[in-house]
Amino acid sequence: MNLIEALNWRYAAKRMNGKKVPKDKVERILDAIRLSASSMGLQPYTILNIEDKELKEKLRPAAFNQPQVVEGSNLIVFAAWSHVSRKQIDEYITHMAHVREIPVKSLEDFRNTIIKMIENNSEEENFEWAARQIYLALGTALTAAAVEKVDATPMEGFKPAEVDRILGLEEMGLKSVSLLALGYRDAENDFLANARKVRRDKEKLIIHLN
Amino acid sequence: MNLIEALNWRYAAKRMNGKKVPKDKVERILDAIRLSASSMGLQPYTILNIEDKELKEKLRPAAFNQPQVVEGSNLIVFAAWSHVSRKQIDEYITHMAHVREIPVKSLEDFRNTIIKMIENNSEEENFEWAARQIYLALGTALTAAAVEKVDATPMEGFKPAEVDRILGLEEMGLKSVSLLALGYRDAENDFLANARKVRRDKEKLIIHLN
Repeated sequence: MNLIEALNWRYAAKRMNGKKVPKDKVERILDAIRLSASSMGLQPYTILNIEDKELKEKLRPAAFNQPQVVEGSNLIVFAAWSHVSRKQIDEYITHMAHVREIPVKSLEDFRNTIIKMIENNSEEENFEWAARQIYLALGTALTAAAVEKVDATPMEGFKPAEVDRILGLEEMGLKSVSLLALGYRDAENDFLANARKVRRDKEKLIIHLN
Repeated sequence: MNLIEALNWRYAAKRMNGKKVPKDKVERILDAIRLSASSMGLQPYTILNIEDKELKEKLRPAAFNQPQVVEGSNLIVFAAWSHVSRKQIDEYITHMAHVREIPVKSLEDFRNTIIKMIENNSEEENFEWAARQIYLALGTALTAAAVEKVDATPMEGFKPAEVDRILGLEEMGLKSVSLLALGYRDAENDFLANARKVRRDKEKLIIHLN
């Protein structure tokens, strides 16, 4: 596996062929999301993995009828915590103490740093911070999917409030931030499948200060 | 190369040993950033790759003196376009027409979609949108670095206005969003180097709707 080749192979398929992505591949993509870096390690989001056909059909209009929503085998919804509570922070600290086999007390300073950061920010600032963490996880997921030769189309074009209502996210303290369709490109019906990849020239994108 | 193993190996090193990352590895990480997915393909950011020791020293106080800023061999600055102009959109459209060998005219609808999206949003909304694209590229970069067995520490804890001033970013129409130190972990002096990775349990992080 060559990562650069995989990234050159990937693109955001606009049409998919309905073929099912094998379970082990889906699991490895979800594992990559779980292993994503995240600010202070908090992972302030929940991931929904939707295979249910009817549910995908119900969600499609909220995503401006984009065909990948139903033509993909899995629709992954990245939903941010709408509010970061002390309870969630404490759960994280307790979990960390448990995994590392250290006393909770030894994490007191770290706990206070997180609380200070969260409580100094407005609700909107914390949501935007959580959304950025989701995009980081999305970047990891897209790379993992490419390595698995699974097509993955991230979608910003959808109505978050609609998606939240259909999935009952508000009651769960969540807000949808990004959709990701996993599946296989329909090369015959997707004019982009054979289009050359367009990226800014490296000399324009990157400035070297040696 | 196993991607999941690489992601398990990675962590955000707090101390690095100053060893230089070979040029070919840095270039592949920058290539991965360049190949990152980005909304409408626009890549609304510029990447600065800083090796200059003095410049890194100058930036360090703006990043609350975090040692990785100078102990890393490369400091990557992700800077978003502070404003998305029609000129930038037109450059993108012209570049796409050139790469795909198609008439600019055939991209008229796509051009209008981008303009409408950008001009319907406030400056702040566009900046936040660009910042999210940067986090997506950051996720790709962290994964690529892990595959290269290069340590990579993303840093949110810095004063963007200070970094912008030192690097003259404002004059370039840019605003710093994230710093990324590339280098090698100093396992002796970084207590995190041997700490167990903490991630939310998969059953808590992911909800399956089949």
